[in-house]
Amino acid sequence: MRVGVIGATGAVGKELVAVLGKRSFPVTELRLFASTRSAGTRTHTPFGEVAIEAFTPEAARGLDLALLAVSGDFAKAHARALAEQGIAVVDNSSALRLEADVPLVVPEVNAGAIGAHRLIANPNCTTAILVVALEPLRKAFGLKRVIVSTYQAASGAGAEGMAELERETRRALLEGQSAGHEVFAHPLPFNVIPHIDSFQPNGYTREEMKVVWESRKIMGQPDLLISCTAVRIPTFRVHGEAVTIETERPITAEAAREILAAAPGVVVVDEPGANRYPMPLTATGRDDVEAGRIRANPVFGDHGLDFFLCGDQLLKGAALNAVQIAEGMRAGIEERRRAG
Amino acid sequence: MRVGVIGATGAVGKELVAVLGKRSFPVTELRLFASTRSAGTRTHTPFGEVAIEAFTPEAARGLDLALLAVSGDFAKAHARALAEQGIAVVDNSSALRLEADVPLVVPEVNAGAIGAHRLIANPNCTTAILVVALEPLRKAFGLKRVIVSTYQAASGAGAEGMAELERETRRALLEGQSAGHEVFAHPLPFNVIPHIDSFQPNGYTREEMKVVWESRKIMGQPDLLISCTAVRIPTFRVHGEAVTIETERPITAEAAREILAAAPGVVVVDEPGANRYPMPLTATGRDDVEAGRIRANPVFGDHGLDFFLCGDQLLKGAALNAVQIAEGMRAGIEERRRAG
Repeated sequence: MRVGVIGATGAVGKELVAVLGKRSFPVTELRLFASTRSAGTRTHTPFGEVAIEAFTPEAARGLDLALLAVSGDFAKAHARALAEQGIAVVDNSSALRLEADVPLVVPEVNAGAIGAHRLIANPNCTTAILVVALEPLRKAFGLKRVIVSTYQAASGAGAEGMAELERETRRALLEGQSAGHEVFAHPLPFNVIPHIDSFQPNGYTREEMKVVWESRKIMGQPDLLISCTAVRIPTFRVHGEAVTIETERPITAEAAREILAAAPGVVVVDEPGANRYPMPLTATGRDDVEAGRIRANPVFGDHGLDFFLCGDQLLKGAALNAVQIAEGMRAGIEERRRAG
Repeated sequence: MRVGVIGATGAVGKELVAVLGKRSFPVTELRLFASTRSAGTRTHTPFGEVAIEAFTPEAARGLDLALLAVSGDFAKAHARALAEQGIAVVDNSSALRLEADVPLVVPEVNAGAIGAHRLIANPNCTTAILVVALEPLRKAFGLKRVIVSTYQAASGAGAEGMAELERETRRALLEGQSAGHEVFAHPLPFNVIPHIDSFQPNGYTREEMKVVWESRKIMGQPDLLISCTAVRIPTFRVHGEAVTIETERPITAEAAREILAAAPGVVVVDEPGANRYPMPLTATGRDDVEAGRIRANPVFGDHGLDFFLCGDQLLKGAALNAVQIAEGMRAGIEERRRAG
């Protein structure tokens, strides 16, 4: 399969290439696209050395699959046109996620939504990490209310965000200077910034509303009562989420733990006595979302549950989920190749 | 007034001395007690140079006020005996906080509970920062449910915790080694640890249950439905708290903002358009608790509110609140001196 990664030099783009290799995706030709600044340089990949190209719609012709890890503006300009050329497109931006004709997919939750679609949206990182654990609980107990507080890593702001956290932490600790900032709205080292993406008229940020809008769409429960407080903290690439749910039917910690232990994409890390619970330290580089601190929350009588999630923002939160979607599109792609 | 600080070399003890000076507490004689290891060394204070003494009950005789910033075991062994000697005692440990005959006080909330008591407990840091904002909302709208997720600083584990965060961050960044840990259960740099204090049979940690038990006692609402997820993150001395409440009566963000703006001990920092919201960066060294990100939460219809708090763990979370309690005890102390 001729696979193109658009935005190949970014944090997510690099992970896409790595994940394609790790999952032995049937790549016959890998093409990497980035800004004209990077074009011409060569990079090592699991599929051999590849020259980076500047993207043009013409250059993309001939691809079977395009994985987009670029801006919403790019997606708006090019995603539908690529799909209309017959290319299977997975878009990582937020631009098309709520379009009625574009499925928004976390394969563990709604792989069936892929169908014969040629353009699929990859959800927000916090949302993907959340719903992979939420959906099995929803199936088993029904969901009435969901309240999420996040502990989000610098990688959500791309490779530049991670570099800024490292550089400014060094500056603060070594040079005794105040940490600076360009990527984030404030210095991130040893700080907490309750502000991710732009503020909306209702007082929530877009990041917080993405969790609301996208969770409802992916789980197919448009009336779900769900809210989020999205907070950036000084970690590199794993998002943490403190989740409180009120279920439709009674729930216990034991029953929830059993459900999550059997859920695809989730690994239960919940042995408090052994100091084992989800952490960025252990979830970094891990495909599965860690779920732990599972306990009944009496605030909702016998219908309440608390748990804590940690998921690699660049994997389940982005590249891994995108490649999983692409895997779900394979049959359709191969059929089109045969037909074409 | 003859004032003794017990545990004077710890993070809270040092802040107690600074806060006594900053608030011009009427200290005629300051005595500092610490472990025998530190005894004999001299230290500069706002009240002149003071020699550190080893604590014995006999050595404490003659104090009018004792501020205890030591362990629960110490408090159990000595706090009541000191009070029975006629010394006004403010204990910062958790040992006596839930005792029926020991008021647990955040002066902005329940200063009246001090009365003629000679032994007062200073609450858990997360709780103090929380209730100073929660109580005015409770008075205005009534509280039905409270859900808190915390972003807690290293200082909650004392000066050693802060030193470990700095030292291990350096080691990780500079020497390219894995960060180590002794104070915390896991390395803290660039990590998140959803584990503070010991685990209870119900799956919550003691830190989380302190927020439940102590908030109920301080606000005098023993049936309040409240839960907490307590998480340690790599910050130095400011605790953040994401709070969701369901109120008895309808609430709006505007009404809540007005109430909080008028509340003592709280400063509203809530101008999203100017990137102003509570952060450790701005709340460090600040007496008032910063409250912001105030918004109606539709998960609870027109009875829901979200907000974010940042409070200096060593000030409102410990030393400042203790000195405020001592100020509330002054009239009684002076009466006893005149009578004695």
